[in-house]
Amino acid sequence: MPKTKVVFLPDDVKVKVSRGQTILQAAAKAGIMLRGACGGGGSCGRCRVQLRKGGLSSAGTGKLPPEESEKGWVLACRSIPEGEVEVFIPETSRLVEHRVLLDERQSGLLAATAEDFADTAPLFRRQVVKLAAPTLADNRDDGGRLLWALEHEYGIVNTRFSRQVLADLPRTLRESNWQVAVELAAVDGFFEIQGVKPTTGKDPVFGLAVDIGTTTAAVELVDLETGEVVGTAGTYNRQAAYGDDVITRIIYAAEMPGGRAKLQEAVRETINGLITDLINARQIDRNDIRAVVCAGNTTMVHLFQGLDPTFIRLEPYVPSVNAPPPVRAAELGLEVNPTAWVYCLPGVASYVGGDITGGVWVTRLSATEELSLFLDIGTNGEIVLGNKEWLMACACSAGPAFEGSGVSCGMRAVPGAIEAIRVVDGGFEVIYNTIENKSPTGICGSGFIDLLSSLFKAGVIDRSGRFVQGLQTPRVRGGEEGNEFVVAWAGETGNGADITVTQADLQNLLRAKAAVFAGVRTLLASLGLELGAVQKVFIAGGFGRFINARDAIMIGMLPDVPLERYKYVGNSALKAARLGLLSQKAWEEMKKIAGRITNVELSVGNKFMEEFVSALFLPHTDVTLFSSLQKG
Amino acid sequence: MPKTKVVFLPDDVKVKVSRGQTILQAAAKAGIMLRGACGGGGSCGRCRVQLRKGGLSSAGTGKLPPEESEKGWVLACRSIPEGEVEVFIPETSRLVEHRVLLDERQSGLLAATAEDFADTAPLFRRQVVKLAAPTLADNRDDGGRLLWALEHEYGIVNTRFSRQVLADLPRTLRESNWQVAVELAAVDGFFEIQGVKPTTGKDPVFGLAVDIGTTTAAVELVDLETGEVVGTAGTYNRQAAYGDDVITRIIYAAEMPGGRAKLQEAVRETINGLITDLINARQIDRNDIRAVVCAGNTTMVHLFQGLDPTFIRLEPYVPSVNAPPPVRAAELGLEVNPTAWVYCLPGVASYVGGDITGGVWVTRLSATEELSLFLDIGTNGEIVLGNKEWLMACACSAGPAFEGSGVSCGMRAVPGAIEAIRVVDGGFEVIYNTIENKSPTGICGSGFIDLLSSLFKAGVIDRSGRFVQGLQTPRVRGGEEGNEFVVAWAGETGNGADITVTQADLQNLLRAKAAVFAGVRTLLASLGLELGAVQKVFIAGGFGRFINARDAIMIGMLPDVPLERYKYVGNSALKAARLGLLSQKAWEEMKKIAGRITNVELSVGNKFMEEFVSALFLPHTDVTLFSSLQKG
Repeated sequence: MPKTKVVFLPDDVKVKVSRGQTILQAAAKAGIMLRGACGGGGSCGRCRVQLRKGGLSSAGTGKLPPEESEKGWVLACRSIPEGEVEVFIPETSRLVEHRVLLDERQSGLLAATAEDFADTAPLFRRQVVKLAAPTLADNRDDGGRLLWALEHEYGIVNTRFSRQVLADLPRTLRESNWQVAVELAAVDGFFEIQGVKPTTGKDPVFGLAVDIGTTTAAVELVDLETGEVVGTAGTYNRQAAYGDDVITRIIYAAEMPGGRAKLQEAVRETINGLITDLINARQIDRNDIRAVVCAGNTTMVHLFQGLDPTFIRLEPYVPSVNAPPPVRAAELGLEVNPTAWVYCLPGVASYVGGDITGGVWVTRLSATEELSLFLDIGTNGEIVLGNKEWLMACACSAGPAFEGSGVSCGMRAVPGAIEAIRVVDGGFEVIYNTIENKSPTGICGSGFIDLLSSLFKAGVIDRSGRFVQGLQTPRVRGGEEGNEFVVAWAGETGNGADITVTQADLQNLLRAKAAVFAGVRTLLASLGLELGAVQKVFIAGGFGRFINARDAIMIGMLPDVPLERYKYVGNSALKAARLGLLSQKAWEEMKKIAGRITNVELSVGNKFMEEFVSALFLPHTDVTLFSSLQKG
Repeated sequence: MPKTKVVFLPDDVKVKVSRGQTILQAAAKAGIMLRGACGGGGSCGRCRVQLRKGGLSSAGTGKLPPEESEKGWVLACRSIPEGEVEVFIPETSRLVEHRVLLDERQSGLLAATAEDFADTAPLFRRQVVKLAAPTLADNRDDGGRLLWALEHEYGIVNTRFSRQVLADLPRTLRESNWQVAVELAAVDGFFEIQGVKPTTGKDPVFGLAVDIGTTTAAVELVDLETGEVVGTAGTYNRQAAYGDDVITRIIYAAEMPGGRAKLQEAVRETINGLITDLINARQIDRNDIRAVVCAGNTTMVHLFQGLDPTFIRLEPYVPSVNAPPPVRAAELGLEVNPTAWVYCLPGVASYVGGDITGGVWVTRLSATEELSLFLDIGTNGEIVLGNKEWLMACACSAGPAFEGSGVSCGMRAVPGAIEAIRVVDGGFEVIYNTIENKSPTGICGSGFIDLLSSLFKAGVIDRSGRFVQGLQTPRVRGGEEGNEFVVAWAGETGNGADITVTQADLQNLLRAKAAVFAGVRTLLASLGLELGAVQKVFIAGGFGRFINARDAIMIGMLPDVPLERYKYVGNSALKAARLGLLSQKAWEEMKKIAGRITNVELSVGNKFMEEFVSALFLPHTDVTLFSSLQKG
């Protein structure tokens, strides 16, 4: 389908959209939330933008005054670009203020691709090798000839054959006239030669980056020759049937007969389902998937590999292994090429896993001069503090609320999820934006941060997160489980039911944000540091496509430091898995980082529980910690 | 069963025999052939020996004069030791003269056992490891703790876990109170941790040394903790059904549908049969066999591993691989512990395999100052010439005659095989000795050398190996396939049939000896050397328990150099496999030797065929090459 490029100013964000799509749709794709109360009907006039360059095949101006439309002002929801355009978006048209939108697409972190690793190579690759044909004067064995050439002509050392490849090597070499593609898998310091093939014909080579979260799992299908992400899929982890958090799953694995095997099967089937979706949609042969890199917390990695997680939850909290060895896909039952190696990013401790090592690497925190904080907010919240000199980490149990689980109207950040919300007019009106502008079916993490902040600001809830009594709005009503707030009425939603948030949901969200903040405070305090010492804050997690840092500070989840210190990095574990797949060097660096991080047990000799209880208010019992809110 | 030690003088050979066995039986076990025409009846008086130390529970003196019996002379066939004894054997009582008996037990090479490698370790071993229990201050992962201890407290580096071992590691460590036996397999420069087990209870650990010959296969079951050979078994290679020599088998593998797989199955079943015999006889669990080292010629290794052997026989004679990688037993279908690694000794070229590398190492030829010759005479004859400075090798096709195949009355060197023969009285009388003094059922390699030599000396055959016409002896008669010679009459044999050697058999034996001699001459000539330049000659092969070097020279198989230069090393390939199994250092040295040997193709630009034709006489067309025979 022909594409059109749209550049949004002043952000200078570029997107390509299909011809015929509106500027509103292009902005949504770029992660820029425009106001649009009338639902794209052109009647509310809130989505006005200014065309600065290029032309429009259709220009909607609605009720805009002529002096504005003459200067290029149009309604984004009714205007369709013709060719490349540049469009300016004023603050007044944005659903959320420009400065606090921490879009991962603007953090520059996504720019890291295979091209950044031109000096290295993926964990699986093909090397074309030209050999001299044997003669009576040089009748070395075929295997020896190939290894010699790899070492002396291509600089590839420490190579090993498998028997299967050797079995038919002589015929392949002769039929290919001594020029072949050698398939190399990097495994723990050596290269396994997995195949030797004719160079005629083009076999695609794919890898998988897998993020195994406690609540959700995501898979990226990556072209290992170009580094491109060919497709992405995500879903809930089927292990949820056996418990919401890692502790209940460890107990299930340890105490139920066959429990460990059931949990292993559940995550295997979760991933296999995503693989099948990805390959079916693209008619890809699953045997062309030749390497898999997984990122997950320590418990998830244990359960994925079938290791005993029992002692992760018992003092002194010891995992079976932090850096599990590569395992064949066939051994784990992953439905890709059975000879593919499955690598798990190396972890640090029972509650600081390989996903965190990956996050630290992706953010380059471990290479920075400034004191930096990394927060990965999933079902567990992990926190890393440090710089290029030292790295400390700890974990706190945040619960899955921000991943859209454990909250009645929660959902993953997929089309139809409400990802940005403003409650205005004292709770009478709710403005929201959904992913891909689909009719809403639930709320994802970034939406919940907005919601909590907005409800508090609008006076719908009090500092303890409880509904204020006697409000004159139909949106607050008695529900089956106490009071609830209607975010979207059945008439607007994609499933014909009201989207509501209950008192119990609010308490879950409050506990989640309190755990994160308490963890940050405790880790800093253990080093005698104040919140203000932090120069950079990297936020990772499955909130959605961005988070509003200002709102996250307002609810007391994130420390009250200047907004420009924040960067949202999205699913850094998945990114790390992808880059590890594409770069042996990245992989080696992550191993080094895992060895550098010192783990701090929050349960041991510190004040985490005390901090947690203090943080169960909006924004906090100690409001002096959030002094910028007083001014604003 | 209680054992008694017998020391034979002047050889100083020691054996242990069961109580109640005669001195004759003890001598046979020691490989010393005594005369015994009456079959142990005490009537011929030929097996007289002198008791020098110790006592006898039964002393047979037969018709010995009293002055002899007073000095301790007894008949070996009628005397039974009581406790440890020393017995002197005079030359007159030996079936074959002492000086030419090249018994492998006298060569000192068998002395090499695990004790010689105290500074190294077997390819599979158990290491007891004591760990510090984790605390909150030191809560490393279990796997990391174990690897750390192996490296820092036991000096074992480059270790790797398998997933299966990690899966239950935490429980094992805790139930064993942090003291465990770690099972380590050395694989290509690293150690695979195959198991971590409690130290309570004693699991035996075995390895297999396997000699895969073209005609015969032999397996030694080795206790990997003591280095002791627990049992030995041998049989014919079932591949013989698909062809007698490597060339016909390569053609079968290359050209028959499924041929390669059938040949692989045949050798696998051959070895599995031997394994089953060994473990059933000793009630050993096959899962306790944890490592397998195989020695074989290049074609045998290809067929065992299922590699394509096609180009071994086509100019320029290129094998798939000389140094095949270790393969899991499960992948090859060997019925031992499925995780056991199967290692093949590294070879040199298409016709100089790992069995020869092993032989060179066992004889220490590659470390000697003197110019030495190594001959391995099996179905193929391989020859290595060199010293610690340089090593050259070539191969010639000798045929399986000396392994007891391709000759009508041939058999392997097992109980009942005639292993030494003297034809006396112009062909009227045959004196022979069988292994374990069982009734004869056939003739093994060492017997054939004696037979050829004796028949020639007695005037039964002429220089071209043909029966002399008009002999007045019933032993030469017309048979179904021309003339034949009766070695043993039906009344003496173990199967009620005459043991005969036909004219065709004699021609096969002649061709075999000619190929060996022609190979030696050609290799020496290619370097401008004469036979006399050779300072040491090591003879390996499946002849039996010894060969009579004097007879081998007499028939023109071995070069006419002083007898003291000869050493018989028996099945050096099997010994090398065993020592490689017991010593990582031995294994590493064999890899180096394989890299040092230069291969010479006999078919290329030299005079092998000319030499072969000249050698088809007894001893040779050029009798000046055997000048010592003229004097003797």
